[in-house]
Amino acid sequence: MDREKEELKYLIELVEHPSISATGEGIRDTAEYLKELLNSLGITARIFETKGHPIVYGEVGKGNKTLLIYNHYDVQPPDPLSEWTSPPFKATIRNGRLYGRGASDNKGTLMARLMAVKRLLDEGKLNIKLKFVYEGEEEIGSIHLEDFARENKELLKADSVIMEGSGLDIKGRPLIVLGVKGILYVQLEVVTAARDIHSSNAPIVYNPVWELIRALNSIYDGERVLLEGFYDDIRPLTDEEKKLLYSIDVELDKVKESLGVKELKVKDRIDYLEKLYTSPTCNIDGIYSGYIGEGSKTIVPYKAFVKIDFRLVPDQDPYKIFESLKKRLNEIGFKGEVKMLDRGEYPVRTSPSSPIVKAVTESATEVYNKEPVIIINSPGTQPMDVFVKIVGIKDAVSAIGPGDPYSRAHAPDESIDINNYYKAIEHTYKFILRYQET
Amino acid sequence: MDREKEELKYLIELVEHPSISATGEGIRDTAEYLKELLNSLGITARIFETKGHPIVYGEVGKGNKTLLIYNHYDVQPPDPLSEWTSPPFKATIRNGRLYGRGASDNKGTLMARLMAVKRLLDEGKLNIKLKFVYEGEEEIGSIHLEDFARENKELLKADSVIMEGSGLDIKGRPLIVLGVKGILYVQLEVVTAARDIHSSNAPIVYNPVWELIRALNSIYDGERVLLEGFYDDIRPLTDEEKKLLYSIDVELDKVKESLGVKELKVKDRIDYLEKLYTSPTCNIDGIYSGYIGEGSKTIVPYKAFVKIDFRLVPDQDPYKIFESLKKRLNEIGFKGEVKMLDRGEYPVRTSPSSPIVKAVTESATEVYNKEPVIIINSPGTQPMDVFVKIVGIKDAVSAIGPGDPYSRAHAPDESIDINNYYKAIEHTYKFILRYQET
Repeated sequence: MDREKEELKYLIELVEHPSISATGEGIRDTAEYLKELLNSLGITARIFETKGHPIVYGEVGKGNKTLLIYNHYDVQPPDPLSEWTSPPFKATIRNGRLYGRGASDNKGTLMARLMAVKRLLDEGKLNIKLKFVYEGEEEIGSIHLEDFARENKELLKADSVIMEGSGLDIKGRPLIVLGVKGILYVQLEVVTAARDIHSSNAPIVYNPVWELIRALNSIYDGERVLLEGFYDDIRPLTDEEKKLLYSIDVELDKVKESLGVKELKVKDRIDYLEKLYTSPTCNIDGIYSGYIGEGSKTIVPYKAFVKIDFRLVPDQDPYKIFESLKKRLNEIGFKGEVKMLDRGEYPVRTSPSSPIVKAVTESATEVYNKEPVIIINSPGTQPMDVFVKIVGIKDAVSAIGPGDPYSRAHAPDESIDINNYYKAIEHTYKFILRYQET
Repeated sequence: MDREKEELKYLIELVEHPSISATGEGIRDTAEYLKELLNSLGITARIFETKGHPIVYGEVGKGNKTLLIYNHYDVQPPDPLSEWTSPPFKATIRNGRLYGRGASDNKGTLMARLMAVKRLLDEGKLNIKLKFVYEGEEEIGSIHLEDFARENKELLKADSVIMEGSGLDIKGRPLIVLGVKGILYVQLEVVTAARDIHSSNAPIVYNPVWELIRALNSIYDGERVLLEGFYDDIRPLTDEEKKLLYSIDVELDKVKESLGVKELKVKDRIDYLEKLYTSPTCNIDGIYSGYIGEGSKTIVPYKAFVKIDFRLVPDQDPYKIFESLKKRLNEIGFKGEVKMLDRGEYPVRTSPSSPIVKAVTESATEVYNKEPVIIINSPGTQPMDVFVKIVGIKDAVSAIGPGDPYSRAHAPDESIDINNYYKAIEHTYKFILRYQET
């Protein structure tokens, strides 16, 4: 089998291992598969149990520097299944793209890096220590990663960490991301009765949806988050960060196309960049109450709930904001409950002049023959704070991945361009070679 | 066979004809049975086809007045079957009660009235014209009754109409209901994208739930409906109606218990009565968007919808309010669609001093030896407006039925007290005699 065929075969195998962290489906099986794969490649691997899904940990090589490679092996639920062109856990190739849940987020990235390390090992070129952390709960908020990091601080010590979550922009330029937004994910629930009630009683009983809306109106006015102190801790951008931010070119029409929307909530490119990268959000992920089938049913529902995520920017604090949320709901006499669904994640923004940023930038320029796009922090979230805040690793960067703007992470028909998979392998290979020399 | 035995035999026969409108089971057979029964009693009967289930129509007698008698012959599905003590379509007598699906709702009422007419005919005492409408779709929303009424306006003309839906209260007092609330049932739907979007894009794309909430906030502020003209057409209560309303005795603790709620949205008995019977509502029956499973999923949903029913009081107009709703949503630039899910039903409130109310009240007092409870309008809805608004019948009342608070309409082990069946026959008999004399 030629090298590229073999590298693709490994990716297909991984995509075809379902590993839905929300339900637990296939998680254990996928962790075992990865441990054995690492061992078979000469990487000493073991499984760390957590109170949730297991973490696969591996080590290989030695030298005066240590690089930690973080990925996650879990995926989002594939629902709605009916909207997939081919089954989500059957890796399917159409027009040069590989379709399957996790192809982009994050199995393509995980495997591309591993295949690069395989090349280095096969060629005897590795001369630093590599540590691998493959998490199984990223898509449900990395619930136990923090505990794992606390309990294994020494084991995880490294000079730098390379996280997943990056990829290519609309022009095929690699993205190098110097930080993340944080997140606070909450659920509000209101129960007003023991069962649904005939809606002729609507004048005399509380409707849980109106109560939920009253709460939501006290949190967000459609423009601004109304929680006390919400905006207070936001760290202003440095001039270097501003320069990086405003140099990002983006075509709003292509953004619309890739997101499947007719209009964006932005005035122009600058507004887009400021909002996407530096605005915290209050987003409703789901809401439910009562009768949602076809036609009509006349009831006052007995229960309603809403799921909300707040994306946070440096240096907002998810726990402080959760306290502020509880305080506000208390002030308005909210007749329901609020709970955090996942651990709060802190936002991170790493200095643009750190060594890992230089190595990954220079190798990117070489492999893609294009200037990479450096992003001050991702508009999304990944548990970078665990490594930066808890383990104490100085430099963190999110870079190298095969995903592109058409990859539809978290949605039906997730995919990657297979050529980008091979580029990601090459990029990792050259990045590590350069990083060894810094 | 003595008279009462015969009257019970007819009821048993009808209950033992299944007639489930939701599935269509036994509908045609029951309609044919009723047509033949009416004809056999000397009432000229025929079947009117609709686009749904057939309507049985009958006429008998003549005189200077016409009374229309409305009932429905369809029943709710008997599920869950396992919770019935005796089979739902085998009329079974235990402890003086007759058990069977429809015994109370509405076959007991239908047959009691028919047996009263039989007595009058047998005794040669009928000297007005009676018209009978037996509908077969009441339990599925009277879908085609309006069409039938429009197409047969002249045929259905009458001075008064007596509807079903009444019975006895917890103290055995007959309920006489002078009207109904109307209803406008709408669905609002917002689609902002072709598919769910990763919530890191929340700063730049519209969230359909926030858009729905913006719309809901423009419709209702938690206390008042904000639609232009919404309250304008409300007809104030007359002193007589106020007296009737405030004389209703109710124990709020028992209301809470029966509804399964810990608190009511009312201050006291007077507030309860005013709200329940005279307040229009804006009630959310159901709302849905995005991820509603266990745990968290970070998406901007592509779609959201909400189902709302407005219960209306005299003389609010559901179609006018629907126009006002569309106007408001247009004014706020609502990025979604609004549609009516069912026909709008008009509220009705008949004057307490109308001849039919006097006749039914006086005969009730005589038969039950108790003051009846007169309710100015039901807090619920039934298609009274079809006869009042479309056919143009002046006086409508919902009264006379054998059901009591133990009858479990729509639930397993539906039943009536057999004594209440004979009382309902006697009540109808005396009501018609009095009505003839007014």
